[in-house]
Amino acid sequence: MKLKNFITFEGGECSGKTSIIGAVKKVLDEKGIKYITTREPGGIKIAEQIRSVILDINNKEMTKECETLLYAAARMQHLSERVIPALKNGYVVLCDRFLDSSLAYQGYARGIGMDNVLKANSFALDYLPELTIFIDVTPDVALKRLESRAEKQDRLDLETMDFHKKVYEGYHKVLDMYHDRVVRIDGNQSLEDVTNDCINKILEYLGR
Amino acid sequence: MKLKNFITFEGGECSGKTSIIGAVKKVLDEKGIKYITTREPGGIKIAEQIRSVILDINNKEMTKECETLLYAAARMQHLSERVIPALKNGYVVLCDRFLDSSLAYQGYARGIGMDNVLKANSFALDYLPELTIFIDVTPDVALKRLESRAEKQDRLDLETMDFHKKVYEGYHKVLDMYHDRVVRIDGNQSLEDVTNDCINKILEYLGR
Repeated sequence: MKLKNFITFEGGECSGKTSIIGAVKKVLDEKGIKYITTREPGGIKIAEQIRSVILDINNKEMTKECETLLYAAARMQHLSERVIPALKNGYVVLCDRFLDSSLAYQGYARGIGMDNVLKANSFALDYLPELTIFIDVTPDVALKRLESRAEKQDRLDLETMDFHKKVYEGYHKVLDMYHDRVVRIDGNQSLEDVTNDCINKILEYLGR
Repeated sequence: MKLKNFITFEGGECSGKTSIIGAVKKVLDEKGIKYITTREPGGIKIAEQIRSVILDINNKEMTKECETLLYAAARMQHLSERVIPALKNGYVVLCDRFLDSSLAYQGYARGIGMDNVLKANSFALDYLPELTIFIDVTPDVALKRLESRAEKQDRLDLETMDFHKKVYEGYHKVLDMYHDRVVRIDGNQSLEDVTNDCINKILEYLGR
């Protein structure tokens, strides 16, 4: 099932999601459209508690299955306490990352398996967004942006290039699986053009 | 998939599980069969942490879905750290309650839905016991035992009679679903007879 006015944003590193969501907010403000922005765990106490179990550095022996189920549990609480009430009160919900991030990052790039992520998230499949904006930046462009970004660029960023490529592949699998709700935006364009494309898709979806 | 030498014990209140498992241990000792006894969360650190999130009295707003996924996460960790290694090392594993308790208690009696419990536990379905001993005590007999048991019997026990009946119904649904691995033992008999029946089934299963 898909939830009306639930919009999620997906993409790898350097996709410009944060700036784009900021620009979307301005446009919705101008048009007088009520919205909230959120991201998991969204300050939800229970979801934060679960996250702290996942991120506890002493929990090295945590299995992939356990981790995947914990993320799924936190997701359900965030949905129940934040996303669904806002939608019921007539707000558009702009959510920075959702299930598709788990599929691309953990399911595909980290090798947990997209099927496993889907199994653990079977409850969340009843609460999918109606529109997902996937900002598609190819790994070579992402790397160039990363290199030019800051002085702080270090070995880690280069070493993870292979990981970024896998995330990219993972997102394209998501795109194939959910072409009914995931819209691909060409993220290799200038930020201005990417932003305009996103805003147009969102306004078209909202019928405004 | 079912795990060889993984044996679970199921049943409602006053089913005598604890005494029975004690008697089974003695027989396995006599026969020189290596075993461990366990129950979730089994002292597994991560599973205990998850359990403390579930049982935190301040977490009243926790959704059924979140709770169900958290139990499933703890179960996977207990399986991975305790049950599976013991089996690999040649031990018989006697586990006091497992997935079927979640199905009967939470899925059916608490109304989460057996389908929901199964969805959340889809990973655990790959690690089912090969033998489940279900000690079937009818609610009227359980109530009589409860009444005669101690001075401490209070209103709570009477009020939950309806709940016990639901658990009983839930277990019979489990029996229908998994007749390939769940063996029903008539728990209304004397404890001695119940225990003998259980021991016979287990020795028969172990080929001893």
